[in-house]
Amino acid sequence: MSIPPRSESTSARTRPTNNATEITVDLGQRSYPICIESSATGRPDESGFAGRLRAALGDCTHAIVIQDAAIATSAGQQILDSLAGEDIRISEIEVASGETSKSTDRLAELWSELLDCGADRRSVVIAVGGGVIGDLAGFAAATFTRGLRFVQVPTTLLAMVDSSVGGKTGINLPGGKNMVGAFWQPHLVWIDTDFLATLPRREYLSGLAEVIKYGVIEDAPFFDYLETNIAAILEREPQTTRHAISRSCQSKARVVADDERETTGRRAILNYGHTFAHAIEATAGYGVMLHGEAVAIGMQMAASLGVDLGLCSDELLRRQTALIQAAGLPRSWAEADPAKMVPVMAHDKKVAHGKLRFVLPQEIGSVGLIADVPQEKVVAAIRSWSDR
Amino acid sequence: MSIPPRSESTSARTRPTNNATEITVDLGQRSYPICIESSATGRPDESGFAGRLRAALGDCTHAIVIQDAAIATSAGQQILDSLAGEDIRISEIEVASGETSKSTDRLAELWSELLDCGADRRSVVIAVGGGVIGDLAGFAAATFTRGLRFVQVPTTLLAMVDSSVGGKTGINLPGGKNMVGAFWQPHLVWIDTDFLATLPRREYLSGLAEVIKYGVIEDAPFFDYLETNIAAILEREPQTTRHAISRSCQSKARVVADDERETTGRRAILNYGHTFAHAIEATAGYGVMLHGEAVAIGMQMAASLGVDLGLCSDELLRRQTALIQAAGLPRSWAEADPAKMVPVMAHDKKVAHGKLRFVLPQEIGSVGLIADVPQEKVVAAIRSWSDR
Ligand SMILES: NC(=O)c1ccc[n+]([C@@H]2O[C@H](COP(=O)([O-])OP(=O)(O)OC[C@H]3O[C@@H](n4cnc5c(N)ncnc54)[C@H](O)[C@@H]3O)[C@@H](O)[C@H]2O)c1
Ligand SMILES: NC(=O)c1ccc[n+]([C@@H]2O[C@H](COP(=O)([O-])OP(=O)(O)OC[C@H]3O[C@@H](n4cnc5c(N)ncnc54)[C@H](O)[C@@H]3O)[C@@H](O)[C@H]2O)c1
Ligand SMILES: [Zn+2]
Ligand SMILES: [Zn+2]
Repeated sequence: MSIPPRSESTSARTRPTNNATEITVDLGQRSYPICIESSATGRPDESGFAGRLRAALGDCTHAIVIQDAAIATSAGQQILDSLAGEDIRISEIEVASGETSKSTDRLAELWSELLDCGADRRSVVIAVGGGVIGDLAGFAAATFTRGLRFVQVPTTLLAMVDSSVGGKTGINLPGGKNMVGAFWQPHLVWIDTDFLATLPRREYLSGLAEVIKYGVIEDAPFFDYLETNIAAILEREPQTTRHAISRSCQSKARVVADDERETTGRRAILNYGHTFAHAIEATAGYGVMLHGEAVAIGMQMAASLGVDLGLCSDELLRRQTALIQAAGLPRSWAEADPAKMVPVMAHDKKVAHGKLRFVLPQEIGSVGLIADVPQEKVVAAIRSWSDR
Repeated sequence: MSIPPRSESTSARTRPTNNATEITVDLGQRSYPICIESSATGRPDESGFAGRLRAALGDCTHAIVIQDAAIATSAGQQILDSLAGEDIRISEIEVASGETSKSTDRLAELWSELLDCGADRRSVVIAVGGGVIGDLAGFAAATFTRGLRFVQVPTTLLAMVDSSVGGKTGINLPGGKNMVGAFWQPHLVWIDTDFLATLPRREYLSGLAEVIKYGVIEDAPFFDYLETNIAAILEREPQTTRHAISRSCQSKARVVADDERETTGRRAILNYGHTFAHAIEATAGYGVMLHGEAVAIGMQMAASLGVDLGLCSDELLRRQTALIQAAGLPRSWAEADPAKMVPVMAHDKKVAHGKLRFVLPQEIGSVGLIADVPQEKVVAAIRSWSDR
């Protein structure tokens, strides 16, 4: 059981400029740019949002802005203002904040709203919000008239570094998260760090867990950078934050370019910490733990498991623990209960034929896929970061 | 304004055998076979449905048969029986007959049923029924866990010659037909003419209209064949019916291979007669006219328009009229009202910038896309096949 190595031919190209970075996600005909900027949305020239949109779309007569209610007066308004001078008809659709909007009911309503506002193949859907809005609006775009063009404007750190990159869109079913969806690549991802100003600290930290993940799974120099610059990142200092977002997007873009539709196995490395995290989220109960918080604890359990199996050093675990703590993230969960978590893990999608399979660290910047992990070792790993 | 000609490189390959035909739809990695057989579903060897399924899928642990309630004891039972000896877990889902099943509500329910029966990436969805089942089940397959494998078992003539080929799947919204969907190619299309035994005559004739359409738009020798063999086709004589289905599938497969995602314009030729037909269906009111009946009348109006514009001969119109009449299809609609139909046509998707655009015949086997048709000519074409 092994993870295919990073391929040589695919890469995420980067073009750093003055206070901006542009990353190209290499997917042949479906390649697209990720722009990472600060205070740039309203710029009237080609470097502003409207200019980038024109460049990415060519002809476009109609933009449908689908936005999270929580950012309608901040990021959403900035996007709408930036389009005011354009010769484009604008429609606005608001979606209530929170995971419950990723439902079949809200999707059906959204489809009707798209019909009512006259969306057709020359329209573009612009999703402004966190992962919930990106996933829902992206799926609606993928399916309305069998495909509208789509632009992501992520406004949470998690959406900037994770959900807006990679082309996965979808909704939840009552019995399962992200059970329905489509692979649908955007034409443009527009990230302005100004949008983070209003994001609650806990949500911001949650996104940071995924940022740290990229350092562990495939970018050792970036892990070093995070150790040195964590204070500036916590202060949301623009340049450092842009760099952290940009390196994260590059990591994700590289993995996605190697394995766009989850067929080669390479994409599995993104699940580092996640088999534990999903079990933590599921047993903690809805809304108790933010996803990134669970990922932080999950990475701790995975690293302990790696140490126990002799795959990685104590030093790796020590550095990861220190960075997670410095980032203000939890490194343990007092109530983590192996008796509840292990059965959940056995049902996880990443489990093949009922055998527990984990993405585990080898050294900072490198992970492996380990099958057939003895259950007692899993239990021990959970226990090392709980009170039980 | 022109239609791209048939490309030389793409084609639908045919391998006729004793009493079966296999057509390959050439879509690179997504190529798949269409098997056109008679009395073959239950065969225990590799030429039966189960054998073909094994060959098309390789590994498969779970099949979900989604079937029209109307054929559950006939075609649906034959498919289930054919799978009984296989080492595959079988789930059954029944869908009520009729267009109303292509709804967001039924789709959401279907997604839940897929979840409940434990569908995962190693499952296959087998749609058994007419175009309604194929479109609904195909869209559910395209989107459940972002894509399950999919097999079409069409049981109406229309589904055999049209909806099961081409990869379009989808549902209706209250305000618009086929507004939501995905391009999702099947791994196999299995056609057994035995399934037609139970199909009401009116439904059968409705499918014949599309068969005649292929002759007019791109296969003149096939039009000749239909003129000669229409009696045997009306009797559903297996060999003749297989040939008619096979030539129709080849036509559609050729067009689809040239223009998989409706981007080059080639796929537009399939809309011959359809701009009029949609207006007829819309003004007749729901359920009054079957789709193929409207298409037959629509082709008459289109051919009259072609004659009036000097694009084709009287002789073409005469031959088309004779074949439609011999096929037992309507060639006129007494109540066709230009005052009602033209506004509907102006909103049709095939209308660019409000100007009326039509696929019109040049000679048997060849059509062109004609823009800017004067409205009075359209009115006259409608009048020539109505009492007004
Ligand atoms: N598609 C993918 O590849 C992928 C990857 C990871 C996660 N996801 C999905 O993403 C979702 C989680 O994303 P998320 O963490 O962004 O959640 P979210 O979209 O729910 O946003 C979190 C909260 O922050 C609020 N918010 C958003 N932007 C804000 C801003 N700028 N200022 C103030 N408040 C703001 C939202 O209203 C919400 O309450 C989940 O549904 C998850 O399944 C998808
Ligand atoms: N995807 C595409 O490319 C495409 C192309 C054309 C049409 N369509 C869609 O196809 C649908 C129309 O297809 P259809 O005409 O097959 O309609 P349908 O599926 O509603 O079938 C017509 C009727 O025949 C019944 N039936 C089906 N098979 C039978 C059998 N063997 N014996 C007895 N009764 C049987 C059904 O219960 C139904 O009442 C429409 O929704 C249309 O939008 C899709
Ligand atoms: Zn995550
Ligand atoms: Zn049709």
